[in-house]
Amino acid sequence: MKIVPVVLCGGSGTRLWPRSRKTKPKPFLPLIGERTMFEATLGRCGDSEQFAPPVIVTGTAHLEHVEEQAKESPGATVIVEPEAKNTAAAIALAARRLPEESVMLVCPSDHHIADEPAFRAAAAAAARLAAQDWLVAFGITATAPETGYGYIKRGEALEGGYRVERFVEKPDLATAQAFLADGGYSWNGGIFAFRAGQFLDELKRHRPALWQAACQAVVNGSQDGNRFHPDADAFAAIEPESVDYAVMEETDRAAMVPASMGWSDIGSWAALRDATDRNHDGNSVRGRAELVDCAGVFVDTDGPRVSVIGLEDVAIVVDGDEVLVTTMQGAQKVGKLAGAAKQ
Amino acid sequence: MKIVPVVLCGGSGTRLWPRSRKTKPKPFLPLIGERTMFEATLGRCGDSEQFAPPVIVTGTAHLEHVEEQAKESPGATVIVEPEAKNTAAAIALAARRLPEESVMLVCPSDHHIADEPAFRAAAAAAARLAAQDWLVAFGITATAPETGYGYIKRGEALEGGYRVERFVEKPDLATAQAFLADGGYSWNGGIFAFRAGQFLDELKRHRPALWQAACQAVVNGSQDGNRFHPDADAFAAIEPESVDYAVMEETDRAAMVPASMGWSDIGSWAALRDATDRNHDGNSVRGRAELVDCAGVFVDTDGPRVSVIGLEDVAIVVDGDEVLVTTMQGAQKVGKLAGAAKQ
Repeated sequence: MKIVPVVLCGGSGTRLWPRSRKTKPKPFLPLIGERTMFEATLGRCGDSEQFAPPVIVTGTAHLEHVEEQAKESPGATVIVEPEAKNTAAAIALAARRLPEESVMLVCPSDHHIADEPAFRAAAAAAARLAAQDWLVAFGITATAPETGYGYIKRGEALEGGYRVERFVEKPDLATAQAFLADGGYSWNGGIFAFRAGQFLDELKRHRPALWQAACQAVVNGSQDGNRFHPDADAFAAIEPESVDYAVMEETDRAAMVPASMGWSDIGSWAALRDATDRNHDGNSVRGRAELVDCAGVFVDTDGPRVSVIGLEDVAIVVDGDEVLVTTMQGAQKVGKLAGAAKQ
Repeated sequence: MKIVPVVLCGGSGTRLWPRSRKTKPKPFLPLIGERTMFEATLGRCGDSEQFAPPVIVTGTAHLEHVEEQAKESPGATVIVEPEAKNTAAAIALAARRLPEESVMLVCPSDHHIADEPAFRAAAAAAARLAAQDWLVAFGITATAPETGYGYIKRGEALEGGYRVERFVEKPDLATAQAFLADGGYSWNGGIFAFRAGQFLDELKRHRPALWQAACQAVVNGSQDGNRFHPDADAFAAIEPESVDYAVMEETDRAAMVPASMGWSDIGSWAALRDATDRNHDGNSVRGRAELVDCAGVFVDTDGPRVSVIGLEDVAIVVDGDEVLVTTMQGAQKVGKLAGAAKQ
């Protein structure tokens, strides 16, 4: 049976400001290569041998971008959330609309995956476990002591994966270093495979109110061409919660498949630099630029020429009436800038 | 007798690129405060008790800026050079057009002088020595081991100044440090006082061809309102040379007056930052900007907001279709950037 991609498409657009804006956040930007992050996500799940047409869950604010950029995905359907209620609700909507036996592959739409064959292999392994009623997370092979991700500790081996021993919240640096040295910990990349009926059963068990409201929103919802509009009143009652908290950390059937696929959540300009092709000095340029005595410098300009002298590990982004210059270390503070926060 | 300011107004505009452009170089920009460098130069010599109306020497390329910005200087006259022939020729033109007994104060138009009373006092002292047929350079009190300036070694004391023992070319760092420790060396700021007739006599003695061509250019030149046009054919014959080489280093009547007046030639973005008012973190901002975790950062933007995180001693300049980001140390290379060099 083909896997049904469930592509979650939201985002507020602060960490990659000023390129990413509230009106056009990260998924809809061609940050790496020619395709947008969202287009690349659909493309990864575009092999019709392995995947069914995608179900996209988004909000009204992004509907125009979604439909414009999903044109190349025949049969794609869109669930239009009346408001953002985090991932548990979004996945519940999709699950409720699918046959119980469908295997869903939940994909964020703003992650970069360099190795698509590795992604598809992991998806196939995850789908096999999901068909056996495991709730499967992709366990991204950790390559650095990242403190910005949740971790998954793997337990006993399953066919093509492992039981999850436990999920770990974002660790401090020492803990992250210990995880990396240990080797038994992976990053939680927010990619999941579920059998639709099994997901709803688990949600009903652990979050009955959320389950009920989501099901009600689907039952009372309305179809409009390829769009499905959940019932706004029912949906409004939902307490927003992530799928990690609401289901993955509650269930005793959590599994993981290891995935080593050049993954990045592009969570900052520093992460984007690291994911782009860089020259022998480690510089990466998009648009007109001249770099002199620079190393590890990232430039992305939408028009003006950017000339840089003597800098190391700095990102420079020019977007319309905004210019951002930040150290890679400082890149995590971008979302707190006045320009990013007051959009 | 009143001092005649002779304001030299040229400049190619590469070191402060992209704000400074070939078509509108440094003298004509309001780099510090509201007035342009040229306006500030005229303003410093604007006290009609001490100064006669200025003689401005410029090229056709900058004539429009000069006349626009000299509007507040009643009686100003302009010598329009057919081509740039360096400072000896420019000063010779002005000297030849003045009465022999006039004392000229030669002023570059792109230097910053924070302490105007100190400037006027030094000008008065220089003028007194010039009236006694000394060729007088301002000796700027050295405050750092600068390798970008020429130095003046002072000799025996004169009334209000010193004989020049020797002029020293731009030194290496160790030499500059030794000069600073010695205390007997000043920076040659390119500001001079001459009696017009004495200057021409010395020029005739040391550079007779240059003297002859400059005099010929004046004799065959033509007046047009406040503008004087030297004869282009005569002027074309001149071998360009600086007044330092052609006269000051040749004469045995070189003198200097010490001048401690907050001088800067604003020879780079680093020098401009140092000359501007800075906040408690050493940052200096012109235009819309937000600085987070920054120190010693200079921002000058003509429109777009500039947001900066985590940088130290960096200049960021936004001017139309050009964005420059440079370390203070790298600022000396700005003129070699493609944008600056290929104007």
